[in-house]
Amino acid sequence: MKKNAVIIFSGGVDSTTLLYDSMRKGYEVECLTFMYGQKHGREVDSACRIADGVNVPLKVMDLSPLGEILSGSALTDANIDIPEVPETAEHYETLKTTIVPNRNAIFLSIAVGRAVSIGSDNVFFGAHNSDRGVYPDCREEFVESFQTSERLATANPGLNILAPFVFMEKADIVRLGAGLGVPFGETWSCYKGGSAHCGACSSCRERKRAFIGAGVPDPTGYER
Amino acid sequence: MKKNAVIIFSGGVDSTTLLYDSMRKGYEVECLTFMYGQKHGREVDSACRIADGVNVPLKVMDLSPLGEILSGSALTDANIDIPEVPETAEHYETLKTTIVPNRNAIFLSIAVGRAVSIGSDNVFFGAHNSDRGVYPDCREEFVESFQTSERLATANPGLNILAPFVFMEKADIVRLGAGLGVPFGETWSCYKGGSAHCGACSSCRERKRAFIGAGVPDPTGYER
Repeated sequence: MKKNAVIIFSGGVDSTTLLYDSMRKGYEVECLTFMYGQKHGREVDSACRIADGVNVPLKVMDLSPLGEILSGSALTDANIDIPEVPETAEHYETLKTTIVPNRNAIFLSIAVGRAVSIGSDNVFFGAHNSDRGVYPDCREEFVESFQTSERLATANPGLNILAPFVFMEKADIVRLGAGLGVPFGETWSCYKGGSAHCGACSSCRERKRAFIGAGVPDPTGYER
Repeated sequence: MKKNAVIIFSGGVDSTTLLYDSMRKGYEVECLTFMYGQKHGREVDSACRIADGVNVPLKVMDLSPLGEILSGSALTDANIDIPEVPETAEHYETLKTTIVPNRNAIFLSIAVGRAVSIGSDNVFFGAHNSDRGVYPDCREEFVESFQTSERLATANPGLNILAPFVFMEKADIVRLGAGLGVPFGETWSCYKGGSAHCGACSSCRERKRAFIGAGVPDPTGYER
């Protein structure tokens, strides 16, 4: 039986590890990568290169018009600076400026549509526990509820929204990825999307801390 | 208190009546209209004209790349003909070719994102009971479940996904719209998207039948 899946794939540490993990589990995967007006559109290049490296089909969905209507996020709005604070609890209010309203529900619903189109019952999503403080659409209770909704929307009680990292910290993901041979040097995390990782935004800080926590060498060349 | 809402607006009979009904109820509304590779892109012209007629802001979201990945629907796929059968139960299997996989979950999730951006708690959606046989994402149980999911995704327990027609037949909607002064002659239903309503596709047939059932004069010039 064909075990296939659609994966929401940004070219970051989490979704790249998820891609490798799902392949190891025997899934035939298709990657969906989204352009939604993010400043770090640079991540799409990483996504393409990584998928290419493992011969997995990837579709880049250019949904840039979303950036115009999902306003108010530091990730998409030129008038709002990417915050340079640690990704720790006392900064959650500041970090909430990096929420793109309802982004993951949008990505998941499109991925489910694609899964239906290709006759797959499975959508993989790289949400993890380190995200839960800031991003409500990365929480287990959301993923579970959304799966229920999508089973109704598609009249397919066998549809699965799989977020196997939802209870893992990012350091655990790095450790898993290291064991799977994930090319971390190819992955992209920085919210600023410059030519190198800035090292100061919350996403870079979380990336640094995850490698340290995992005891895995960090191949990233940070600016700061 | 500002009572505002985002409405998923196609320029058809249902969403136009919903627009008029929500305005009558005192909502300040913004319309979202989607281009998703549908053959009847013609509906977008209707949507713009109708929103303009009542001075309501409308955003056309050009998400045409969705058409490429949500394949297998007669509404988007050039290789699949729009079926010309009545919209009755014995034809449901044929009519399922007009399902665009997960379309309404995709539209709703984007509309929720927009609602968050503009500080609104309300999304209006024109699903009705005549759709339920064919389209699982028009059913009340889906709408209710999706509202639960979106409350979690946005960490807003006050978010509402409002589908006030979900238990109404299309004829009831036509009757309501007639009382509200809906410009039915401006609305578009035909799945084929020619220069006039074809009169033969299931959407045209349902439209015809709804006007007859409502006892409301049908201003539509059908080809057949």
